[in-house]
Amino acid sequence: MRIKLTIQYDGSAFCGWQSQPNGNAIQDHVERALATFLGGKQVRIYGAGRTDVGVHAIAQVAHFDTDKRVNPFKLCLGVNLALPSGIAVTNAEIVEDAFDARFGATSKTYRYSLYVSPTRMPLLDATRCQLYTMPNVDLMQKCADMLTGTHDFAAFQKAGSNTNGTVRTIHAINVAVDGSNIDVVVNGNAFLYNMVRIIAGTLVAVGYGKISLSDVQAMLDSGKRKTGIKTLASKGLTLVEVLY
Amino acid sequence: MRIKLTIQYDGSAFCGWQSQPNGNAIQDHVERALATFLGGKQVRIYGAGRTDVGVHAIAQVAHFDTDKRVNPFKLCLGVNLALPSGIAVTNAEIVEDAFDARFGATSKTYRYSLYVSPTRMPLLDATRCQLYTMPNVDLMQKCADMLTGTHDFAAFQKAGSNTNGTVRTIHAINVAVDGSNIDVVVNGNAFLYNMVRIIAGTLVAVGYGKISLSDVQAMLDSGKRKTGIKTLASKGLTLVEVLY
Repeated sequence: MRIKLTIQYDGSAFCGWQSQPNGNAIQDHVERALATFLGGKQVRIYGAGRTDVGVHAIAQVAHFDTDKRVNPFKLCLGVNLALPSGIAVTNAEIVEDAFDARFGATSKTYRYSLYVSPTRMPLLDATRCQLYTMPNVDLMQKCADMLTGTHDFAAFQKAGSNTNGTVRTIHAINVAVDGSNIDVVVNGNAFLYNMVRIIAGTLVAVGYGKISLSDVQAMLDSGKRKTGIKTLASKGLTLVEVLY
Repeated sequence: MRIKLTIQYDGSAFCGWQSQPNGNAIQDHVERALATFLGGKQVRIYGAGRTDVGVHAIAQVAHFDTDKRVNPFKLCLGVNLALPSGIAVTNAEIVEDAFDARFGATSKTYRYSLYVSPTRMPLLDATRCQLYTMPNVDLMQKCADMLTGTHDFAAFQKAGSNTNGTVRTIHAINVAVDGSNIDVVVNGNAFLYNMVRIIAGTLVAVGYGKISLSDVQAMLDSGKRKTGIKTLASKGLTLVEVLY
């Protein structure tokens, strides 16, 4: 039968989602813990998306197949005992065989988290990126609205990325401010490599007046990124939700 | 001149606030970083309160004296360069010589943070303690109100603690629920050893119906703790604010 897993992780200590030769990817740890729980047989899991080194997930989704009859909740607890403290299976459920964690996803929500402070804040640093002064958040939201919809996001991917086309659809980008914390929440159906981190970097550049909204329009039109836009640090990025 | 420091830390990697022979207390790290910044001379700092191993602080306060003329903001940045990533000075200011971080404090606010989930949540585990099911939060607040005021808190300190009397005044205890997170926020003028963690444990025991409100009243009256009340884990405790 096919099992759908929901997995939470603090990405700090791991080599991203996708299996690595050193065995320290989140996929590696979950596969080993499942094999331990299910009795030694190797297990292959399929994740909704390949989060990068240092990226976190509140609710990554993956599926795997097993011949064993398992109680999903006992599987959660058992697998969690075998996982390092930074990774946990937060839910497991039996799904129909047609369920596919990767290809069945209809939308994914990522959050890029920032905090504004002239000095660093150790209690925020694990999952937020520091800004030294408050940017213009209204301008950031205007830029976010401009990027929403179906566009050629060639200027918003890592240089040299190899993908089948660069047109993607973003359903919504919301810039939420809570005191000195800023969250950029991006919902879309598929993303290019580093796309959310570059979108966040673009919003910050606009918020500081380093580039204008018409510069951003020119990026959409030309497929070329303006200089001065950072790909923000991976630690600020969290995969929040995957819908099917 | 006397300098007031505001210090934030993630207590996970350190041996509490108070200086230790192994040099891994927060006080040790800050004193070494200050000595580095000020040119090698040993510095002694005085903190508002001695947080335990594993306890965090959003805004611990300390003071120290120096003969050097220092720019407070440059001191923050310089000292932070010499501190481990889990500790940072978030503010420094020149104060009058009569200011005393410990004896001048008029109130301190601590927060005990919980999350409710049948499975562990790695992104919450660093600073929150897990509960498996939702307790009765209204009962927890009723218990909190009962503990507010001036009482003999002998039943709410670590057994064998050596203190001058056990009467303390709690100004307010607020039980705040946000989704599956519960924060117990305690404001008072002084606390016994482990008092906030035992108060949080008492509230949880009441919230689960393990003890009744009249059991709690009996604890206040007798000075003896009921069995089954846990001193909750230090990682859930954060020193939020110190007022003068």
